[in-house]
Amino acid sequence: MLDIPKFVEIHEEGPREGFQIEKGPIATKRKIELIDALSQTGLREIQIVSFVNPKRVPGWADAEQVVAGFDRRPGVRYTALWLNDKGLERAIATGRLDVVGGIALCPTEKFLKLNQNRSLDENIQAQRERIQIFKQHGILVERVGITAAFGCNFEGDISHQFVLNQIQQLLDIASESGLTLKTLRLSDTMAWATPLSIKRLVGAVRERYPSLRVALHLHDTRGMAIANAFAGLEMGVDLFDAAVAGLGGCPFADHRGAAGNVCTEDLIFMCHEMGIETGVDLDRLVEVGQLAEDVVGHSLPGSVKVGGSLQKLRQKIAAAKAA
Amino acid sequence: MLDIPKFVEIHEEGPREGFQIEKGPIATKRKIELIDALSQTGLREIQIVSFVNPKRVPGWADAEQVVAGFDRRPGVRYTALWLNDKGLERAIATGRLDVVGGIALCPTEKFLKLNQNRSLDENIQAQRERIQIFKQHGILVERVGITAAFGCNFEGDISHQFVLNQIQQLLDIASESGLTLKTLRLSDTMAWATPLSIKRLVGAVRERYPSLRVALHLHDTRGMAIANAFAGLEMGVDLFDAAVAGLGGCPFADHRGAAGNVCTEDLIFMCHEMGIETGVDLDRLVEVGQLAEDVVGHSLPGSVKVGGSLQKLRQKIAAAKAA
Repeated sequence: MLDIPKFVEIHEEGPREGFQIEKGPIATKRKIELIDALSQTGLREIQIVSFVNPKRVPGWADAEQVVAGFDRRPGVRYTALWLNDKGLERAIATGRLDVVGGIALCPTEKFLKLNQNRSLDENIQAQRERIQIFKQHGILVERVGITAAFGCNFEGDISHQFVLNQIQQLLDIASESGLTLKTLRLSDTMAWATPLSIKRLVGAVRERYPSLRVALHLHDTRGMAIANAFAGLEMGVDLFDAAVAGLGGCPFADHRGAAGNVCTEDLIFMCHEMGIETGVDLDRLVEVGQLAEDVVGHSLPGSVKVGGSLQKLRQKIAAAKAA
Repeated sequence: MLDIPKFVEIHEEGPREGFQIEKGPIATKRKIELIDALSQTGLREIQIVSFVNPKRVPGWADAEQVVAGFDRRPGVRYTALWLNDKGLERAIATGRLDVVGGIALCPTEKFLKLNQNRSLDENIQAQRERIQIFKQHGILVERVGITAAFGCNFEGDISHQFVLNQIQQLLDIASESGLTLKTLRLSDTMAWATPLSIKRLVGAVRERYPSLRVALHLHDTRGMAIANAFAGLEMGVDLFDAAVAGLGGCPFADHRGAAGNVCTEDLIFMCHEMGIETGVDLDRLVEVGQLAEDVVGHSLPGSVKVGGSLQKLRQKIAAAKAA
């Protein structure tokens, strides 16, 4: 338990994750309403939109309108996802986003083909080109990532050694361009991780690259996300992606069930109850989780928004004792 | 991770937990169908019934009929819950149950009043009397338990010291009667535990009573149950109560949301994927989880029954590669 951090940073991805997979249609103004509500919770980074081919991801056909309409709150970073140069250019063109540079590899060729239509080698070359494009736009490249790092619905288990090799490839690509990357995001895109595989892979990464900050992106398809997050915390991970109410899921990952990200309010509940600060107002976020259900029109998987936070309950109990 | 056990024993409580809280009515033969299906999965102990006041728990008005109707499978223990002597006598009278002796305390007087209409002191005396009644019936007393050990919806946080004191009281009561108790069950009846409080309390118990086997009974009201189970595994806990599909919840605990026990198939999925054996056929149990939803007539919280086991997926991937 010694490595458990005192402060954990949460990158909210509910809007981007959620609206890409919901059958919808969801009105643009309701998407904006959810983003604006998230801005009021203390979250410092929110991925609000995805610039992808509207034929493949119809839920994000209104990406530009959403970005034009939300209220930027000072101190909050608003980011976007894109998969190619055209998407990046669309993100930059809005003039209202925090465009963060990053490169990523994926250890499973079949998923890469489906998701980005590239081979493993083509993807390495694409990351080199991506760095050059970021440079042309004056965008700082800070992050590297491995998608499907813990297993793949199309290729099965992924060896930790292969993932470590890909991390080295990413660092080499960065180094060729004189870049020093600070954060490594390991994504359990298809929910193959267990707390033990989290500990083993994160442990191996921290052993080999002690100065690299490790972030986790966890899906809850098989109910392991909170346990995996706890395992990450125990290994000193202090940066997590999460989605309010457990929204989301990759449209190309052959998901079934509650395939969304680890639920933000459940993760924050766990952190706060364990004495880890997040800077987020949990009870306010719980209300946003309930709003998210209203926006998508069906119930969503998060538990604390139904079971209730303990902070509220403690206040109620204290009031009853005082009365 | 060193303490993680190689084999974990799961006590299935889905039928007892589930049918006490479901709004129902559920036909007796469907309850029996679920119990018989559970018997085919490799589970070695199943709590199938509750002998309680049918006015307070109408879902168990047919307790005797259920016990009369299920198929006893050799090698499986079939247990019951009861809260008073009358319940115990009903359980014994069936002649078809494995009646296991146990005594328990509860650190929170308000919950005790609601659940069993006793004060803290009255409850201690009741446990003494309970041992005598077990003796009269020739029933071995093996288990001690603490309910609401991690927090209470009516009284708030519970100090670990108070729980440790109650454990000592239970051991003293047992000792007065010449009994040596082997298993201590810590119940997070109202879902206040976090992985950290699990580690701290289990750690304190194991430190003080190294020869006592610790079992955990975990509810998932706030989404922490699987993470709490993992924390227990890390502390060497090798016995868990669980409920297929996440059925259940105490009718007097003021629960909201998915208040059931940790989901058996999700817990077993985690164990198997981490190399821990359970003796249970996960894919068969997943089918029983789906049956449970059919029996109660609505969806239930477990994830693996929707997201799918990885073992099946691995087989499919291997078959595709071979083709």
